[in-house]
Amino acid sequence: MSEQKNRQIRLARRPKGMPDESCFEMTEEAIPRLREKEVLVRTLYLSVDPYMRGRMNEGKSYVPPFPLGEVIVGGVVGEVVDSRHPDFAKGDLVVGQLGWQDYSVAPGKHLTKIDPDLAPITTALGILGMPGLTAYFGMVDIGKPKSGETVVVSGAAGAVGSAAGQIAKLHGCRVVGIAGSEEKIRYITEELGFDAAINYKTVPDIRKALSQACPKGVDIYFDNVGGDITDAVLTKINYQARIVLCGQIALYNLEKPDVGPRNFTRLLINSAMMKGFIVSDYADRFPEGMKRLTEWVSQGKLKYRETIIEGLENTPRAFLGLFRGENIGKQLVKVADPQV
Amino acid sequence: MSEQKNRQIRLARRPKGMPDESCFEMTEEAIPRLREKEVLVRTLYLSVDPYMRGRMNEGKSYVPPFPLGEVIVGGVVGEVVDSRHPDFAKGDLVVGQLGWQDYSVAPGKHLTKIDPDLAPITTALGILGMPGLTAYFGMVDIGKPKSGETVVVSGAAGAVGSAAGQIAKLHGCRVVGIAGSEEKIRYITEELGFDAAINYKTVPDIRKALSQACPKGVDIYFDNVGGDITDAVLTKINYQARIVLCGQIALYNLEKPDVGPRNFTRLLINSAMMKGFIVSDYADRFPEGMKRLTEWVSQGKLKYRETIIEGLENTPRAFLGLFRGENIGKQLVKVADPQV
Repeated sequence: MSEQKNRQIRLARRPKGMPDESCFEMTEEAIPRLREKEVLVRTLYLSVDPYMRGRMNEGKSYVPPFPLGEVIVGGVVGEVVDSRHPDFAKGDLVVGQLGWQDYSVAPGKHLTKIDPDLAPITTALGILGMPGLTAYFGMVDIGKPKSGETVVVSGAAGAVGSAAGQIAKLHGCRVVGIAGSEEKIRYITEELGFDAAINYKTVPDIRKALSQACPKGVDIYFDNVGGDITDAVLTKINYQARIVLCGQIALYNLEKPDVGPRNFTRLLINSAMMKGFIVSDYADRFPEGMKRLTEWVSQGKLKYRETIIEGLENTPRAFLGLFRGENIGKQLVKVADPQV
Repeated sequence: MSEQKNRQIRLARRPKGMPDESCFEMTEEAIPRLREKEVLVRTLYLSVDPYMRGRMNEGKSYVPPFPLGEVIVGGVVGEVVDSRHPDFAKGDLVVGQLGWQDYSVAPGKHLTKIDPDLAPITTALGILGMPGLTAYFGMVDIGKPKSGETVVVSGAAGAVGSAAGQIAKLHGCRVVGIAGSEEKIRYITEELGFDAAINYKTVPDIRKALSQACPKGVDIYFDNVGGDITDAVLTKINYQARIVLCGQIALYNLEKPDVGPRNFTRLLINSAMMKGFIVSDYADRFPEGMKRLTEWVSQGKLKYRETIIEGLENTPRAFLGLFRGENIGKQLVKVADPQV
């Protein structure tokens, strides 16, 4: 095992504004030997997620920055190829926060086994993983949807947004999605059952479109994007509205601080609530979230899509594509097939 | 009674930006006759409050705009001089949303009797009225102060801010006030027991001052002002911080929309919550709030100050003074002494 080379993608430089492939470099090194309680995992699928952009900067975002020159860390589904931990055996399928690399060594306690008979293993990075849980807790715990309310979701065709909107539908809400292509609009309305959708790239007047799509105003806004779209939605909020601040992807690559209407007065005069969160805030409720998500997926009530690029070397391209809106649903990179 | 003249202050024009006395006009008319279930109230004290600025504009703020040409409506403590309602008799002291005028006629159900033996009658417009309840519900229900946390209050020497800060002290918090004069700074630190205070008009660097005053960061920000001060405080918030959006007095007289850092990312990366409110959101919990406030005041744990201008004709001046920070504690206008 240890003679085999391990390809790794490292943070080569911190981006200013929009990152490009020169921010990453691919290196190779030997696979390290296992120590007691460690497990060697062969990467099958990698997750690329918008929040990782924040970790490329120097300052703390949700989580500490990626160290310069180190392997990028993110969600990985892999297969155990060697183990010195009693709970893991060769052939086990696992998910964890591992590296953008062919092989990762991790303490067993940082890994979670997944059952390939329950759902496709890729779902552990999507609808039954961090994005699904993010949508669940954001919508259910912060949004608190009530039957008959109107919910707007931005980034509605993404991994989190598409799940958040469907969860609101399951609570009896009218759900309006905002997305950036006709294909995405068709996906969320025709396949996922959103009541209406707005293509923010082509609509002449987003406020007017929101007024038409939300004749009773907006009770919950699940925000993945920020910026101008959020400004527009905030003009339509109702008394006691809830704004779920999940992401601000429109801002992550700005070179200057985000400036615009401060908009707090909108919250003030509507007794509205805005709450930021990260899924780990809900770590002690993950079992509840997984149970609900698994039930809904198995009953066909919660649909998902994955956009999969092949090849570890294409991981930076997949990541950068997130900021161009190239993905529908969860963006994954397939690195290898299971061997065992 | 009906031959006596009733002086009234009416909205003469809607202001653009900072209002001035030309926005108001004083008129006189006869006191109307009482109909069944109505009460005639002689005004003793009037309340002027920052939120009333929003009602001078055309669009809806918290509450509908004041109609042009009509008598301004606000909190009044008065004395019943005539009654056709079985629950009210001549000489009763009452509080209600009445007019900027010598005499108001109101349905009995819109009035609340006050007991002058329990506390000075002016407190029904301040610490034991709308401002006290606003401080109580904002701090207790939205801020949710926990012992050892750090609380920042802007507009800290005002009627609401001074109470909000003391309520946080009663919950064991470190409380830092922001205000605009040395007299106010002395008042909140020396009389009210705030742990630290910042004079935003004279401090060279408010962020540095906040860092010094809040070495453990900010857990709760009770915001009465908005704008630059709020921008500065938001750079210091901790994980799971709560921002109580109570007022934005720095913005009420802007002629252009408020523009600046959108700041939502600050909430996002700190899992922070921001909630706007108006005291009437808590109408069904007013008895709870009044009970707590009354206990604290009677035990000497909750102090208050009033700034009183005499004469109905000076009501516009008292109101305009709010935006120049002329008041400490509750700004009132004394219109008459009780006669009965």
